[in-house]
Amino acid sequence: MIKPVALPHACRLLNHGPTVLVGSAHGGLRNVMAAAWSMPVEFDPPRVAVVIDKRTLTRELVTASGGFTLSIPCHQVLDLTYTVGSVGGAELAASAGGDKFERYRIDAFDGPVLGLPLIGGCVAWLECRLIPERHTEDAYDTCFGEVVSAQADARVFDEGHWSFRDDNSELHTLHHLGGGHFAWPARMVQARVLPVG
Amino acid sequence: MIKPVALPHACRLLNHGPTVLVGSAHGGLRNVMAAAWSMPVEFDPPRVAVVIDKRTLTRELVTASGGFTLSIPCHQVLDLTYTVGSVGGAELAASAGGDKFERYRIDAFDGPVLGLPLIGGCVAWLECRLIPERHTEDAYDTCFGEVVSAQADARVFDEGHWSFRDDNSELHTLHHLGGGHFAWPARMVQARVLPVG
Repeated sequence: MIKPVALPHACRLLNHGPTVLVGSAHGGLRNVMAAAWSMPVEFDPPRVAVVIDKRTLTRELVTASGGFTLSIPCHQVLDLTYTVGSVGGAELAASAGGDKFERYRIDAFDGPVLGLPLIGGCVAWLECRLIPERHTEDAYDTCFGEVVSAQADARVFDEGHWSFRDDNSELHTLHHLGGGHFAWPARMVQARVLPVG
Repeated sequence: MIKPVALPHACRLLNHGPTVLVGSAHGGLRNVMAAAWSMPVEFDPPRVAVVIDKRTLTRELVTASGGFTLSIPCHQVLDLTYTVGSVGGAELAASAGGDKFERYRIDAFDGPVLGLPLIGGCVAWLECRLIPERHTEDAYDTCFGEVVSAQADARVFDEGHWSFRDDNSELHTLHHLGGGHFAWPARMVQARVLPVG
């Protein structure tokens, strides 16, 4: 059910503020972490910003490889999302050995353009080429990227639009409130433009 | 029901990716616009990033005053949120006269630190001092700010936590999917950390 998403529609995947999983790999190492802090910054060319703490393994791999992936998790991978946001990749390797993919049996597949890891069980996937911005990376841990591929599970995102319904609630995106509490957008509503008074 | 929020908790207001209303004022002019693209970048000191198109009146006022506000709208101001995101402040003044506050009868109140406009009917409010970053403002329309005051409606955010329940659904935050379609986080769930396999 995975379909490509046209690049000018890629930012719609992030528009409503879901928590994402940041995937990275370089020189035989790979990692995945959860990030609640990401946003689009431009539709076309599609560009995003994501906050990645400079003390993390992810940040090291992103800087070294010049790219990262964003996988958008859903209700069916709730515990995994919280887990990869709570456990550091370097700490895991030091204490238990191996990486998160091995130790949590995470199903990953390679992105079509950069070959970086995308996370199975999610509902949308973006590959991003890092746009080096040394100052904002240093001062705000904010990394900019240009989206070079986008895909989504057509059962919940198709023809450029999310569709959150009662019959696909396991595929709804997750929005982290803090401490492992997540909200999920179980309802949709259409707004109208008010007339000038 | 409006209570102050401790500054180290201010970023929790934005953590789950809600659409925000950006308020601004300078030299007798004021404006409000919707923005789907914002995120925290640091908990303490609390800092945020928000994308504000350089062609907007809001951007002009933010640059001139050195500050902006973020009001977090909820279901009860759904149409207003979409409207102030669809109608430009400068265009409205040129065509119909007046500003959005007058023409859409928007109830605003002054922020306690910067005196910038906060929007009534919302559920949380932040005042931010602009951190001037000329390059990212130019290249990505991304404006950084330090949060200097935070408040929330205690019926839905209290003691540092959101509480989205069936009995306060009118106060749930809005998450823009595009084209006036909004999702709202009608459900909450607690995740657990998985054991290492």
